[in-house]
Amino acid sequence: MQHIQKIAIVGATGYGGLELLRLLHQHPQFNVTAVYNTSADNPTIDSVFPHLKGMYNLTLSSFDSRLIMQNNDAVFFATSSGVSKDLAQPFIEAKFPVIDLSGDFRLTASDYQHWYHKQPADPTLLQQAEYGLADFPTDDGINATYIANPGCYATATLLALAPLAQHDLLDPDNMIIDAKSGLSGAGKSLSTASHFINVNENFSMYKPNEHQHIPEIVQQLHKWQNSIKTIQFTTSLLPINRGIFISAYVKLTQDITPEAIHKLYTTTYANKSFIRVQALNELPNIKSVVGTNFTDIGLSYNPQTRYLTIVSVIDNMIKGAAGQAIQNLNLLAGLPDTTGLSLIAAYA
Amino acid sequence: MQHIQKIAIVGATGYGGLELLRLLHQHPQFNVTAVYNTSADNPTIDSVFPHLKGMYNLTLSSFDSRLIMQNNDAVFFATSSGVSKDLAQPFIEAKFPVIDLSGDFRLTASDYQHWYHKQPADPTLLQQAEYGLADFPTDDGINATYIANPGCYATATLLALAPLAQHDLLDPDNMIIDAKSGLSGAGKSLSTASHFINVNENFSMYKPNEHQHIPEIVQQLHKWQNSIKTIQFTTSLLPINRGIFISAYVKLTQDITPEAIHKLYTTTYANKSFIRVQALNELPNIKSVVGTNFTDIGLSYNPQTRYLTIVSVIDNMIKGAAGQAIQNLNLLAGLPDTTGLSLIAAYA
Amino acid sequence: MQHIQKIAIVGATGYGGLELLRLLHQHPQFNVTAVYNTSADNPTIDSVFPHLKGMYNLTLSSFDSRLIMQNNDAVFFATSSGVSKDLAQPFIEAKFPVIDLSGDFRLTASDYQHWYHKQPADPTLLQQAEYGLADFPTDDGINATYIANPGCYATATLLALAPLAQHDLLDPDNMIIDAKSGLSGAGKSLSTASHFINVNENFSMYKPNEHQHIPEIVQQLHKWQNSIKTIQFTTSLLPINRGIFISAYVKLTQDITPEAIHKLYTTTYANKSFIRVQALNELPNIKSVVGTNFTDIGLSYNPQTRYLTIVSVIDNMIKGAAGQAIQNLNLLAGLPDTTGLSLIAAYA
Amino acid sequence: MQHIQKIAIVGATGYGGLELLRLLHQHPQFNVTAVYNTSADNPTIDSVFPHLKGMYNLTLSSFDSRLIMQNNDAVFFATSSGVSKDLAQPFIEAKFPVIDLSGDFRLTASDYQHWYHKQPADPTLLQQAEYGLADFPTDDGINATYIANPGCYATATLLALAPLAQHDLLDPDNMIIDAKSGLSGAGKSLSTASHFINVNENFSMYKPNEHQHIPEIVQQLHKWQNSIKTIQFTTSLLPINRGIFISAYVKLTQDITPEAIHKLYTTTYANKSFIRVQALNELPNIKSVVGTNFTDIGLSYNPQTRYLTIVSVIDNMIKGAAGQAIQNLNLLAGLPDTTGLSLIAAYA
Repeated sequence: MQHIQKIAIVGATGYGGLELLRLLHQHPQFNVTAVYNTSADNPTIDSVFPHLKGMYNLTLSSFDSRLIMQNNDAVFFATSSGVSKDLAQPFIEAKFPVIDLSGDFRLTASDYQHWYHKQPADPTLLQQAEYGLADFPTDDGINATYIANPGCYATATLLALAPLAQHDLLDPDNMIIDAKSGLSGAGKSLSTASHFINVNENFSMYKPNEHQHIPEIVQQLHKWQNSIKTIQFTTSLLPINRGIFISAYVKLTQDITPEAIHKLYTTTYANKSFIRVQALNELPNIKSVVGTNFTDIGLSYNPQTRYLTIVSVIDNMIKGAAGQAIQNLNLLAGLPDTTGLSLIAAYA
Repeated sequence: MQHIQKIAIVGATGYGGLELLRLLHQHPQFNVTAVYNTSADNPTIDSVFPHLKGMYNLTLSSFDSRLIMQNNDAVFFATSSGVSKDLAQPFIEAKFPVIDLSGDFRLTASDYQHWYHKQPADPTLLQQAEYGLADFPTDDGINATYIANPGCYATATLLALAPLAQHDLLDPDNMIIDAKSGLSGAGKSLSTASHFINVNENFSMYKPNEHQHIPEIVQQLHKWQNSIKTIQFTTSLLPINRGIFISAYVKLTQDITPEAIHKLYTTTYANKSFIRVQALNELPNIKSVVGTNFTDIGLSYNPQTRYLTIVSVIDNMIKGAAGQAIQNLNLLAGLPDTTGLSLIAAYA
Repeated sequence: MQHIQKIAIVGATGYGGLELLRLLHQHPQFNVTAVYNTSADNPTIDSVFPHLKGMYNLTLSSFDSRLIMQNNDAVFFATSSGVSKDLAQPFIEAKFPVIDLSGDFRLTASDYQHWYHKQPADPTLLQQAEYGLADFPTDDGINATYIANPGCYATATLLALAPLAQHDLLDPDNMIIDAKSGLSGAGKSLSTASHFINVNENFSMYKPNEHQHIPEIVQQLHKWQNSIKTIQFTTSLLPINRGIFISAYVKLTQDITPEAIHKLYTTTYANKSFIRVQALNELPNIKSVVGTNFTDIGLSYNPQTRYLTIVSVIDNMIKGAAGQAIQNLNLLAGLPDTTGLSLIAAYA
Repeated sequence: MQHIQKIAIVGATGYGGLELLRLLHQHPQFNVTAVYNTSADNPTIDSVFPHLKGMYNLTLSSFDSRLIMQNNDAVFFATSSGVSKDLAQPFIEAKFPVIDLSGDFRLTASDYQHWYHKQPADPTLLQQAEYGLADFPTDDGINATYIANPGCYATATLLALAPLAQHDLLDPDNMIIDAKSGLSGAGKSLSTASHFINVNENFSMYKPNEHQHIPEIVQQLHKWQNSIKTIQFTTSLLPINRGIFISAYVKLTQDITPEAIHKLYTTTYANKSFIRVQALNELPNIKSVVGTNFTDIGLSYNPQTRYLTIVSVIDNMIKGAAGQAIQNLNLLAGLPDTTGLSLIAAYA
């Protein structure tokens, strides 16, 4: 276990990078000492982002893998999809700690090509990366140093279904996920879809059954419950800045009381600091987790239709990106996974 | 067919009543001449609602069934549930035209008691009321004069499913409705749930499988497709003023191509002025219908899971309340159902 | 007075043009028969804007002044600034009725150049256009057929100050306007400033004392009160779709009671259908006018500081653009100015 | 200087109290060990506020001054106005450290009675309290232990004007403050004004020249610049959760260049950790400070009108309430005032 203190961020000017800068400022051990972007000029970061004034005295530098490893103890890739797959090799070869927030190392080569419509990373590199669902750290990953941080929708969905999938309780023919996300999930780029007038006072479904987080959900569920091969998954846009709300409707393979289902959830998550299972029939809302690394989960069973409704909520920028990334680095650094992440939601 | 011109509104100070006043001001034949509320004092309506200044010169009066029928040609009940059931009798006996926006006359007595937790109307009165899904006017209702205007969620859901239910195509075990509504659906009363701080930047599910619109949905679907006895139905609150978004996930009883399903929808709705079926795989959003009496419907089929996703959107205050009520009175008055309702959504 | 019925819209795909299409659909006499844009292809308008489906059966055509005049009775220019100045000449020469929603014909050539940083229209053309503040139609403009429709901020500000300026009551050294607008005022173009994440839950001031509506405000105030040569004017962005809120703080040149000031306002606006002066000390809010052509005005006097606070609110897309444009064409066509514009705000 | 570690909060269930709980959870030295409310029952705080689950294990107790002082080192009063004036005496007499977030100890008895319409605290108690504008700690307050934490509007306004007032540069006849606040400033109580439908997509001015923060602004400005006796001050409601935006328009008593004014600001605030003066002509927006204890200030001068526009922005719940309260207790405890308050705004 190496001592990790000096942190570099590649892709520091996107939403994910800026959230890392915000959260890491509170971390008692990790200290951001270098920030990188892809453009040629090298401004100070607070000249580009005035809200960082007085908090960081850093200059954006051009990417240089050798210098990053020389001067830092770990690096976050907060880059768009298709970037880190071309940058990762020297870090993987050097076993240098990397948390990759992009989708480049989450899937098999063929799945990546199919869902991202891009050339995948080299398969030998892919094999050395580990999918890092931080609340379920894998035993065999103890030596992995390249962590593929899960997607935001995937995190919320997998934590909603894990207790059932791990016990082979999901009926693979009856799993419907209606997922909704705030706008920050769509990133910084300008598009008609992110224009205020088109989002405010609106709600729209996009990419039904085509979202690129679907394969990583299926891949992980399949590991837990072999019979799962696909999932019904739609994504919609909420007129809010942050938050993911998963409404999952599932049937079970066994006849089991709502109380027993609830018990399964509380047991599974008893020692997970960041997962809060509500009382049976109490459903969480987005505000309770925005600004935190929590996943709140609620359950409601309909005896007429035999559908179980599972609601899970996260902050897509924290638990769904930067927060889970820090949680993963905490684990890699041998720290309690809550280090620097004990955040409470704003009530008003 | 009677000539209907002078209109009274009972419950004019609630959201539904105010929306009737707004829409009827544009109607070429109907003219609001009397407004009623339940409180004792009798202010002018524009002193209570300054936005009506210059548009209506009316005084709120106390309810008097005899005077209403004497001075008007038809009446809208825009009252809360539990009110019109005690006021309806003289109107029904006189066969005086009534459009009732509340839930009091939509259900059987036992369903009403079960879902509304209130004493139902007299069953002999209930029998004389007709459930008025305005885009599917019933042949046998030609002599009914007491129209139970459908609920907002029910309208959007029934129009989403009608073409399938009417052809016995819905698999009753696989119908999941994830419904979302803007805040105006919850009405004017003050509650923690309607406080700005608790709604803004939030999203929450409420009353899962317990919303009082469920029985009217099941009742009507059952008329269309005898095998339907229940439905999986959850409701969530969107941080917007207006709009309902229905995400329906259904499996079909027959193997049928997406193109054929789409054809069924376009055929069913070919002559319905207020229903617009999008091209296959194009999904409507809320903004396209807010401010209008339209229902926009979109379809997307997932061959892996065999689930059909149906999206339908309406303005809950117009198609889901006041607009459909006017559409119903248009039909009763022998006018084209679009009279006074050819409204276009604001784009910006 | 010519009979005007067939209407063309140039720039039909911007916010202003789409709002004209929406409002004119309700007009009893004007009928949009042709729409023009600047791009080369000619799609149907409802294929580009699905919310228009079933309401307009029009194809976007390329601009052709001869055809426009041949086939129509009047034209609206809903183009960006810098466009109509190059298109206007044939219409002006033919005395063909034009309502120009852009800023191209509102100012003197030198003011235009200074504030818009563009080449102005030919001064001989400028002279033949009339600034059309619709609630104060000028006597000498009776023969003008090219109407420069006022800017949104200018409309709300001028109507807030007119009664005082017309009586030389404004102290020119103490006129502070703090103006706020919803996002639709900024138009359709994509920019960091219109990205949802940057607008939602935010408020920002922009272009302090540099907004291009300032010179048209000063120009008109100066006509009313010769001593006015400049104005303190800031503009801010509200996280809402529509609405302008003007907070004007002024000192008066005479000692006059609040009641007398209020009387001056009610007298000035007694016969203006679209201006509603609230009771003294009652201040209007944006919701009361959104969706309407109204200007609501409120007054509050502070005897300690001797500042009069004037609040005026409009819907920037209606009274501030398309609505006033129709009001102006109503006047040109000899119709009551309220024709097709008797709209009530949505309460919920 | 006493060692302060154990903290009690009286009024822990209001917005201010909940924000204290949220922020103090991050504080390295202060530790909330007791929470009080006024109701009779004693639930655990996380049963009432699920978002606190896992973060605080506290039971709400009934107020008892003796027990509070016995078991804690300092107390925050986060009570509504009119409460702490009746609770303060034993704490003041014992010189027990109190930070009072309410308005009860900010004003003279007569001002309090006039603006709050309530009986004031005992004048001998009032004299022992100190107005705690935390960025300008007073020398003579070194022994004060009862700190009246400033109001939110007052904080943002005073920091906007301090550099000018301290140099007698404000023209007392030309100071116009147009202040806007998000909804959390209005607190938790249910009212028509806080119903989502009435706030969302709206903007309204309230209490023009009557807000209860006006007298504390004037009182403090008067201390800095003797000639100031009143101020023109209006308050408006923004449709957002958090944030205050002050637009101040002032004339100066001397002819001074914009650059020199800007210099005055940067000099005054050079060593204040929480005040960030933007470059001349750059104006801050609300998002840059929400979630932080910062005050961002921008300046823009209009040579035509000779008005200086000053913009200042704060998070009303942090700098305007709980954050400044902690800053004040840091000072009282001899800690750097930034302790536990080095927070960065969320960018997305």
